[in-house]
Amino acid sequence: MIISYAALKEKSKLEKYQVSLPSLEANQVSIDVINCGICHSDISAIDNAWGLSSFPLVAGHEVIGKVNAVGKSVTQHKIGDIVGLGWHSGYCHNCEYCKTEDYNFCSNTKKTIFSQYGGFAQSVHADEESVIAIPAGMDLDKVGPLLCGGITVFTPIIEFGIDKNFKVGVVGIGGLGHIAIKFLKAIGCHVTAFTSNEEKSDSIIEMGADEVVSSIQQDVLKSKHDQFDFIISTVNQKLNWNSYLACLKPRGRLHLVGATLEPIDVSVFNLMKGRKSISGSPVGSPKNIIKMLEFSAKHKIYPEIELFDFSEINAAIEKVKRNEIRYRAVVKW
Amino acid sequence: MIISYAALKEKSKLEKYQVSLPSLEANQVSIDVINCGICHSDISAIDNAWGLSSFPLVAGHEVIGKVNAVGKSVTQHKIGDIVGLGWHSGYCHNCEYCKTEDYNFCSNTKKTIFSQYGGFAQSVHADEESVIAIPAGMDLDKVGPLLCGGITVFTPIIEFGIDKNFKVGVVGIGGLGHIAIKFLKAIGCHVTAFTSNEEKSDSIIEMGADEVVSSIQQDVLKSKHDQFDFIISTVNQKLNWNSYLACLKPRGRLHLVGATLEPIDVSVFNLMKGRKSISGSPVGSPKNIIKMLEFSAKHKIYPEIELFDFSEINAAIEKVKRNEIRYRAVVKW
Repeated sequence: MIISYAALKEKSKLEKYQVSLPSLEANQVSIDVINCGICHSDISAIDNAWGLSSFPLVAGHEVIGKVNAVGKSVTQHKIGDIVGLGWHSGYCHNCEYCKTEDYNFCSNTKKTIFSQYGGFAQSVHADEESVIAIPAGMDLDKVGPLLCGGITVFTPIIEFGIDKNFKVGVVGIGGLGHIAIKFLKAIGCHVTAFTSNEEKSDSIIEMGADEVVSSIQQDVLKSKHDQFDFIISTVNQKLNWNSYLACLKPRGRLHLVGATLEPIDVSVFNLMKGRKSISGSPVGSPKNIIKMLEFSAKHKIYPEIELFDFSEINAAIEKVKRNEIRYRAVVKW
Repeated sequence: MIISYAALKEKSKLEKYQVSLPSLEANQVSIDVINCGICHSDISAIDNAWGLSSFPLVAGHEVIGKVNAVGKSVTQHKIGDIVGLGWHSGYCHNCEYCKTEDYNFCSNTKKTIFSQYGGFAQSVHADEESVIAIPAGMDLDKVGPLLCGGITVFTPIIEFGIDKNFKVGVVGIGGLGHIAIKFLKAIGCHVTAFTSNEEKSDSIIEMGADEVVSSIQQDVLKSKHDQFDFIISTVNQKLNWNSYLACLKPRGRLHLVGATLEPIDVSVFNLMKGRKSISGSPVGSPKNIIKMLEFSAKHKIYPEIELFDFSEINAAIEKVKRNEIRYRAVVKW
């Protein structure tokens, strides 16, 4: 039996709760949790906002920990290794995407918080391919949020070949957006931060943004028309997407990584004029997580975090809900 | 004075109508019209469906003709040349897009049917960059529809690097869709035609489609999930875009070239899952029209047309409106 912080029912506060993890499978790794980031998706899971949750639910999918046991077929990790675990805790290994290590598109992924007990616990199990070695020398308190928030914004940067010649907008400067700014700045892009909270401006400029503009004032958006090659939105609510399309240059792309329930409502003419694209993406594949960690280690890129003791997890979650965290909460044993 | 077929007011039948073309500008070419395709956009203009029309309106923007005069600075065309003219009849030459010959994205384009009198007439004027030489030996009765309908579907094929390894869907097999099938087949793609009118199936297979499926039966669409790299929709009405997104493989793209007034309403989750894109594009640049005509001449690709005498233009338009043309109407003097 191990200690977890579990939601015993929908929308409840987390309780200290003993769970028994199933016996380790041959291809699995058992990880003693050192710390774990708190992602908005954890809160969506606790609240059953997507209808995917079963209770008791142990959330937490930005895990940093130490390997304490390995299944008999595991080759990539050994006891004592410092590793990370993100949104996925396993893949099917049979589909065409698994076969090309495009694990992210496997249609039978295991999810760390839905398919099993997650990282708000003393230990967590995961298939070895979903477990990522953390490069030596990284500041472990700050790495967890890269495993979900970080890879979610790093993946489109890789997939769409964003380079220093791109003029990029980042919409929503929270857990994901602030990491996006740091990655894009390290690449050398001109970065404009769109935020609804201008009180964050000074810290956003400090992170590397070239300018900060209001994400909600239509007249401000109008002054930014026809300027951007790429705009990434990290917000999990519906914005005026037509206004953001108008901020793109011809051939520009508006890319959404924030999971909003309301459909997109853009005009077809706004897409056609200027051959623009709208797209979205989920987290990322293990090979891109490895690439991201190398990039982060090289450029010393870490999320800004607020560190809490695991016993303070409910207070931390409340602060996330009130949008008061600057910029990602991490709970630590 | 020349003879035209003009709409004297919104939604009216065309009337034989004398117009006086303005004097030829230095960079303009005057073209004696040989024939002209009838595009749905001509009907939208006559009906003022987009609120852009002024009357009397002379539509017609798939023009094939012979140069009868050139302005004093014209270098690319000479009297007697056989040329074509499409949606644009001029560009600003000052913006960053004109400077890189990406004329299509010029924000001050002249439109053949909105900025001036168009091709349903004995003669038409246009700036020389918008006038395209027709390769020798082409069947002139059939080339007109390539200048708008053809380039509209050829442009995304070029822009998105569609090659023989792509599995492609074409939605809506009318004026644009049937040309798309021919282009894609010449490239070597596997082509699936989605049509609401299964009576067209035999002729669609004859044009080169590998299969024909219903565009409106949800159970048929379901059997096509996760199969396509690229789907191009040519219809000018709202379909169930989420169903078509589901037919895409990961990293797939749903591309719209049909101008529908209703906004897109896709779910953000459907974009995110599988990193999918939705995009749109308008016609194409002169350099791509030239590329298309070379490709068409090489592969002997022509639209299927029904030829009418100019005096039958109202009957031809009525037939277009009733979706009875197989597959593009052309009027000829």
